Amino acid sequence: MAAITYEHIKTCKQSGARLGRIHTPHGVIETPAFMPVGTQATVKTMSPEELKAMDAHIILSNTYHLFLRPGHELVKAAGGLHKFMNWDRPILTDSGGFQVFSLSDMRKISEEGVQFKSHLNGDKLFLSPEKATEIQNALGSDIMMAFDECPPFPAEYDYLKRSLERTSRWAERCLQSHARPHDQALFAIVQGGMHADLRRLSAEQLTSLDFPGYAIGGLSVGEPKDIMYRVLEETTPLLPASKPRYLMGVGSPDALIEGAIRGIDMFDCVLPTRIARNGTCMTSQGRLVVRNAKHAEDFGPLDPNCSCYACTNYSRAYIRHLIKADETFGIRLTTYHNLHFLLQLMRDVRQAILEDRLLDFRDAFFAAYGLNDSERGF
Amino acid sequence: MAAITYEHIKTCKQSGARLGRIHTPHGVIETPAFMPVGTQATVKTMSPEELKAMDAHIILSNTYHLFLRPGHELVKAAGGLHKFMNWDRPILTDSGGFQVFSLSDMRKISEEGVQFKSHLNGDKLFLSPEKATEIQNALGSDIMMAFDECPPFPAEYDYLKRSLERTSRWAERCLQSHARPHDQALFAIVQGGMHADLRRLSAEQLTSLDFPGYAIGGLSVGEPKDIMYRVLEETTPLLPASKPRYLMGVGSPDALIEGAIRGIDMFDCVLPTRIARNGTCMTSQGRLVVRNAKHAEDFGPLDPNCSCYACTNYSRAYIRHLIKADETFGIRLTTYHNLHFLLQLMRDVRQAILEDRLLDFRDAFFAAYGLNDSERGF
Repeated sequence: MAAITYEHIKTCKQSGARLGRIHTPHGVIETPAFMPVGTQATVKTMSPEELKAMDAHIILSNTYHLFLRPGHELVKAAGGLHKFMNWDRPILTDSGGFQVFSLSDMRKISEEGVQFKSHLNGDKLFLSPEKATEIQNALGSDIMMAFDECPPFPAEYDYLKRSLERTSRWAERCLQSHARPHDQALFAIVQGGMHADLRRLSAEQLTSLDFPGYAIGGLSVGEPKDIMYRVLEETTPLLPASKPRYLMGVGSPDALIEGAIRGIDMFDCVLPTRIARNGTCMTSQGRLVVRNAKHAEDFGPLDPNCSCYACTNYSRAYIRHLIKADETFGIRLTTYHNLHFLLQLMRDVRQAILEDRLLDFRDAFFAAYGLNDSERGF
Repeated sequence: MAAITYEHIKTCKQSGARLGRIHTPHGVIETPAFMPVGTQATVKTMSPEELKAMDAHIILSNTYHLFLRPGHELVKAAGGLHKFMNWDRPILTDSGGFQVFSLSDMRKISEEGVQFKSHLNGDKLFLSPEKATEIQNALGSDIMMAFDECPPFPAEYDYLKRSLERTSRWAERCLQSHARPHDQALFAIVQGGMHADLRRLSAEQLTSLDFPGYAIGGLSVGEPKDIMYRVLEETTPLLPASKPRYLMGVGSPDALIEGAIRGIDMFDCVLPTRIARNGTCMTSQGRLVVRNAKHAEDFGPLDPNCSCYACTNYSRAYIRHLIKADETFGIRLTTYHNLHFLLQLMRDVRQAILEDRLLDFRDAFFAAYGLNDSERGF
């Protein structure tokens, strides 16, 4: 039996967005879904109970980071990642590919894999399709990602083509070395930059291997959003309708809605947690920098239209005070709010799909959000 | 009507320790009680709900810090400290005296008060008995402390005598300027260093003014613990049995028990929260430095005899990983455990008083704790 199954509930008549459920060994993910990122086996500042209180269905954790520290063998000895971090809902682990290419030093790429130096201590390390799979098998995530090469943006057409073909060969090696296909679902990652024909080539090669789910990688890497949306429109129709589709590294409110409209089922991004640590919040009225002096005596909530724990109990003035005073609880509150905001947004998106009105929802959301105001978007 | 009343339930037949209740405008404090410290209107890393889950009856907050940032007028405009920080149980605020003498630069002490420079930005500021009282009236704490001078240890006898007499005059000025005696109880602070006759002089002067409670200041300032216990034995009998007695700045497990044995009702200390941030824990088996390498693969709890949230759900290996990786959630867990440990200790102490066996409890606790092992105590 496959580790996961995708259940398609309906397609929005207004937009083509999909409402569905992914059934996993650790429970159901309602889609379209946003996945909070817990890089080092913890979603920064949050407890598992808080993530459940905001109804996160799944979190993401990073293979590269856990490989370096505390080591996948230690996590395995602890009983796997779920037990280690006390999270009994689904977990997706990435492949380590993106981090090897963005965080580590002195990379050497070969057909075999990537040699690199740890960003923590300079140790010489090696990741290959087989090694990334072995690590994720040890972590025990519900959804694993195939080890891919993440080319920079912009990159030459020829390089992108050679790279995506290697990524396809690597994906096949991941599939062959995968030790627990009945417990963990391995997704492949479609690459190909901003080129429609390369995306088609990548999708064809990977779908021929029949993975239980497909991700779209290499987007949200610096390109304008309208190009990202165009690539999505060209790529999602190439992916099997019976499998989940995951857009990697995307988490701005507008891109989540636009991604859902283009048939994406899953998203992840560090944006909500990272900006929270700088005292920046996502609200129904756009970006709010709560640490700014103008909020010093503002006794209203972060977002007047939000019902989260932070907005129900604390004022902007208090949260600003905590952040100015370097008090962790301030970052807990902005993190809680931002994650709740995106999870609530996805609940609203799912409801709008159910009622065939996702385009109407988008227009109303963007009008309040002030998307075209550079002060308010992300 | 007085803001608070002390209800004496019983005295331990084995030790002389007191079991009681302090009734305040925001609820009942069972005594002997330990008060977690929330210096900047937050108990570092904790939420109010977590403090309630571990059954903290009262917390302490710092007048000096809130005066500097965000300012007592802002807290007053927010509706007072309880509302500002979302804590609806009792709060005690200190007088700012200790911080002025320990944190600020360029102090100039006169009969009028203390001129000093802010440790945050160098601003020239002034605290007097009237100002400290005004600030605490604005904060709206249930229990306020009279502004006192905190002499260094060791200090000359003559200086200590002049200082405590000024502290008595300042206490009277606090009482006279106190604007909300029916809402907030003002406690006086007995000084006098390690000298029995000076403690007697201070206690006589202050008890003649009929405060609703009395603190013992100037202890746990570097003197050996047996000297502190001797001073307690000489001082608590001088304080009215009908009022609460508060030993300031004491929070090591052994000193809490020994203080209760000597008739103390209230304690506060940053020790449990401060050491938690270094990855150090209080356990039934003594001090545990969970960040040490020997705990890297230890999948047991911080304390095998503890039922707190951290010990129920997480291993030493996981908590060590979080702390090594600079993840806030690790410090949340060690902080939660340490505070729970001291609050549970005080529950055990109260039960032992009820059953007239506090000395037996102390001996059993110390035997397991390994008090005389320098690796294990605080």
